[in-house]
Amino acid sequence: VALSFILAESALELVPEEIRRSPAVASDSRRRGKEPFEILLDRSFHHSSMARLKESEKRGRPDLVHVALLSVTGTPLYLEGHVKVFVHTFPGLVLELEPKTRIPKNYLRFRGLMEKALVEQPEKGLVSVYRSTVPELVKRRSKSDLIIAFSIRGKMENLGDVSKEVAEAKSPAVIVGGFPHGHFSSETLSVPDRLVRIDESPLEAHVVASRVVYEVEKVSRRMND
Amino acid sequence: VALSFILAESALELVPEEIRRSPAVASDSRRRGKEPFEILLDRSFHHSSMARLKESEKRGRPDLVHVALLSVTGTPLYLEGHVKVFVHTFPGLVLELEPKTRIPKNYLRFRGLMEKALVEQPEKGLVSVYRSTVPELVKRRSKSDLIIAFSIRGKMENLGDVSKEVAEAKSPAVIVGGFPHGHFSSETLSVPDRLVRIDESPLEAHVVASRVVYEVEKVSRRMND
Repeated sequence: VALSFILAESALELVPEEIRRSPAVASDSRRRGKEPFEILLDRSFHHSSMARLKESEKRGRPDLVHVALLSVTGTPLYLEGHVKVFVHTFPGLVLELEPKTRIPKNYLRFRGLMEKALVEQPEKGLVSVYRSTVPELVKRRSKSDLIIAFSIRGKMENLGDVSKEVAEAKSPAVIVGGFPHGHFSSETLSVPDRLVRIDESPLEAHVVASRVVYEVEKVSRRMND
Repeated sequence: VALSFILAESALELVPEEIRRSPAVASDSRRRGKEPFEILLDRSFHHSSMARLKESEKRGRPDLVHVALLSVTGTPLYLEGHVKVFVHTFPGLVLELEPKTRIPKNYLRFRGLMEKALVEQPEKGLVSVYRSTVPELVKRRSKSDLIIAFSIRGKMENLGDVSKEVAEAKSPAVIVGGFPHGHFSSETLSVPDRLVRIDESPLEAHVVASRVVYEVEKVSRRMND
C-alpha cells in the first residue's frame, strides 16, 4: 500500500497579520526573542487575542497537530515507507514530510521546526511547504483512487472493513481533521468518496490517526504474508 | 473490563540531587525562574549533565511519557472509565490518575502539572503520588488476575489474541515501558504472567499503548453487544 495521510485544515499556522500587534502576541514575541510573524499561533499563549480571528475555534493548536503526527510517524507502516504525510493547514499551506522522516517528540523542538518551515517555505527537504487546497492536493500529489475522510458527521462503519478497502486500493488517501472543534469545510468535503464515522463519540485526531494506520498496517501485512 | 495500564520505569522525575548544581541545570533553573529541585529532568535541556547519572539512557524523557499518556487518555475505553492509569517512574514514585482525568495536550502545561505533582506528592486528587515498586503496585492497587508486559524481548504473539485474554480477565493489567532505550529491570520482570512482543521492530511506548487499549476496547465492546 502507498497510503496518503492528510491531516486537513490543521490548527497550525504562524500568527496571522490581524493580531500581530495584539498584547498577548507582543509579550510572547518579547519573551521568546522572535518576531511575531515567526511564531506559531498558539491558543495557550494567544487566547485573549484570538477571538477576533475568523473560525477562531478551529485554529492555534499546534500541540494537537504534533500529537497526531507522532501517532502516525511512530508506526511500522510509516517507518517502512508506506505512508506519505501531508499537513494541510487552516490558511492553505501544506507541509509534506519526506517519507520515513521522524519528527521531534519534544514539543519545543517540533515548534521550532514548524516555525522554520512555515517562514522559509522550502521547496524540498525533509519538510517541504507549498500552497494547496485539499482538492488540489489529492489531485496533484497523492493521485488517489480511494479517498476516505473521517468525521463524526459520517456514516458509521467498521474501521476494520474500511481499512481493508483502503489497504487494497492502489493509492488510497485518508483525511483526518487537524483541528480541535468544528467540522470540515465544504471545500474539503468535496473530496472524499465517503465520509466515515468510526465511533459513537467524537475522537481526537491522534486517536483516529493511530487507529486507521494500525488497521491498514494489519491488513497490508496479512496481504503480504 | 477494569484495565490497569502501567507505564513502568517511566523517564519522568525531578532533577536528581547529584546534578542539581551542574551548569546545564543551573542555567535552565534561572531561565525558568524555578529551583532545580522543582524542574523535570529533561534530556533536551540537561543532556550534558546527565552522563554521570546511573542508567542515564532510560531517564529524562517527559515528552515521551506525555505522548504515551495522551494515547491512552484519548481513547473511548479510558474516557468511559474502564482504564486506570499508573505512571511508575524510574526513581520509584507512582503517579496515579483519577479515572477519566484528562491531561493537557499542551506540553508546557503537562510539564507544570507533573512538576507540581512530584514536588507536592498529593495523597488524593486528579493525580495522586506515592512511593511503590511495580510488584507492590500490582499487588496492592490493581489486584490483577492477568498481567501482560510488552517488550521486544518477549515472545511474539498476536495482539488481537492477547487483548482478548486481557478483556476477558476480571482485573487485568498491562505494563508498557515508559523509557526511550533499554529494557525492563529484573524487579519489573518479576511481575508479568507473560512477556509479549507484538512487532518485529521495537515500538515506541505511545504506539504500543494506543494499540493495546484499542484492541482491548474492541473486544470489550463486542462482549457488551
